Amino acid sequence: MKKYQVVGIGNAMVDVLARADDVFLADAKIEKGIMQLIDMDRAVSLYASVGPAKEISGGSAANTIAGIAHLGGRTAYVGKVKNDQLGAIFAHDLRAQGADYATVMAPSTAAAETGRCIVIVTPDGERSMNTYLGVTEFLSPDDIDVAQMAQTEWIYLEGYRFDGPESHAAFAKAITACKGAGGRVALTLSDPFCIARHRAAFHDMIRDHVDLLFCNRAEILSMYQNDGFDTALAKAASDVAIVACTDSENGVHIRADGKHWHVPAVPTQIVDATGAGDLFAGAFLWALTQGHDLETCGRMGNLAASEVISHIGARPEADLTGLFRSHGLL
Amino acid sequence: MKKYQVVGIGNAMVDVLARADDVFLADAKIEKGIMQLIDMDRAVSLYASVGPAKEISGGSAANTIAGIAHLGGRTAYVGKVKNDQLGAIFAHDLRAQGADYATVMAPSTAAAETGRCIVIVTPDGERSMNTYLGVTEFLSPDDIDVAQMAQTEWIYLEGYRFDGPESHAAFAKAITACKGAGGRVALTLSDPFCIARHRAAFHDMIRDHVDLLFCNRAEILSMYQNDGFDTALAKAASDVAIVACTDSENGVHIRADGKHWHVPAVPTQIVDATGAGDLFAGAFLWALTQGHDLETCGRMGNLAASEVISHIGARPEADLTGLFRSHGLL
Repeated sequence: MKKYQVVGIGNAMVDVLARADDVFLADAKIEKGIMQLIDMDRAVSLYASVGPAKEISGGSAANTIAGIAHLGGRTAYVGKVKNDQLGAIFAHDLRAQGADYATVMAPSTAAAETGRCIVIVTPDGERSMNTYLGVTEFLSPDDIDVAQMAQTEWIYLEGYRFDGPESHAAFAKAITACKGAGGRVALTLSDPFCIARHRAAFHDMIRDHVDLLFCNRAEILSMYQNDGFDTALAKAASDVAIVACTDSENGVHIRADGKHWHVPAVPTQIVDATGAGDLFAGAFLWALTQGHDLETCGRMGNLAASEVISHIGARPEADLTGLFRSHGLL
Repeated sequence: MKKYQVVGIGNAMVDVLARADDVFLADAKIEKGIMQLIDMDRAVSLYASVGPAKEISGGSAANTIAGIAHLGGRTAYVGKVKNDQLGAIFAHDLRAQGADYATVMAPSTAAAETGRCIVIVTPDGERSMNTYLGVTEFLSPDDIDVAQMAQTEWIYLEGYRFDGPESHAAFAKAITACKGAGGRVALTLSDPFCIARHRAAFHDMIRDHVDLLFCNRAEILSMYQNDGFDTALAKAASDVAIVACTDSENGVHIRADGKHWHVPAVPTQIVDATGAGDLFAGAFLWALTQGHDLETCGRMGNLAASEVISHIGARPEADLTGLFRSHGLL
């Protein structure tokens, strides 16, 4: 038995969650519903303009790993924070959830701080993310422990990391070590605009290394350049063994072995959409490592997503195992 | 018209909110339902033992002032944080709510950090508070701006501050400046054990300076040394012009001018009791400055308390003005 079921690699972030309306988004020139990268000056001015906020550990892959740990999976996370108060919060919350986390912190003297994402949640529950990467931008191959990568069934790579100058090499090192020991590679596309910035690199990795691709409708259309949803799904399915493509309230489309499943979403009152895709991936991957069939993986993913969008914050609060049991999945 | 209706002085804290059960409290030797002071070592070990947490600005008087600002009151806060990430969060959240906040931050080189309160919320919604004071302990007379104290209708003093070595002098300076300009003084007793540590100093201040005393059943009993609730209420009413004594789900007892009002609590599903007393005081004080009668002040206080205990965190999230209006109070 491998030590880990899933090791995630991504942007280590603390979310700063504030509520505002669409007028605020327009005035602040924030693109609704997506992630935009901001620098420290913008982070300072934007933070000054939002109302009272809550600080909750986030980071896309870190949310996924927190979900897997919450479910009792053997899991670890790799992503860089600074030795500062927000970095301590990030590390605590992951470890307290039961995930291993050993990435060396950037020293407290580093110029950049721990990354943070100013998440504006509008009354419709949609989230618009403004990401100051800080030290997490500098994750490098030195931060990849090849022994750890050889000890996991899956690595889970966050597409947002394609924006980091050294993280292509870090991903390559992790993939080589993981696959060399018989492990498999999952990738989440993360964001349509990040894909547009790095489409060729994404596609090379998908075709050459990825076994399981997580994405949503906007991302797969960006990846396969707007050939229509069904065409994009088919292209993805020809590139990787398993595709799991979420489509908001329309549920998830899964393709593998020439087969196709559509699993409906779980109707929920959306309070804060942050983390829906992350927790879908976490529950799906956990279910896969437990030997469940792909349709059940999708059902568990949808249930986990429905839990996380029912409250503020991108990590599970209710007992997901109990939720799966109450739906007859365990 | 004075610039401010209420200026609060208290412990500036960021709350670290985590859920745990009574067994955890017993194992960690945490006294349930009260505030206990802890040092940095204990803060570190306790934090390491709790699950994933949320960081939300807190501080008893700061919550009260945030409530007054939320209601549109003219208000300011005095309390010390450090120039660190948690200090920036505390300052942002108060200002973003509309309160003035100008206390000079302790320099980033200070040995102590911004104060934090590790709040363990049990399934019954009760909160058990573990307070690392950090730099907020060192609030001194130098931090009191006499011009500001002369420009406010009320000062609101947090009893917890009696634990600070220099804050008796800081309170005295604020009281002199405020009363000298025709202002009035409100005090919250904060905590039965804090009262036990400083009973004589509390009583001297109450008798000599306080116009409006906020407390709860346990606190007034500690203050007047267990003479029975009615006797304690009567003693308090002989010491100050107005007494507002909350009694959890039994509502609030108000005494003034030889009269007595009992205002029932608003039935609520308790998610997190943190801030109930703070928001009661905030809404009560705001209502008083708006010229409402004492019974209405009590009703608004109870409604505000019911809002804040219905969610995680000690500051209002729903529109309190709308809540008062829907109950026919505005």
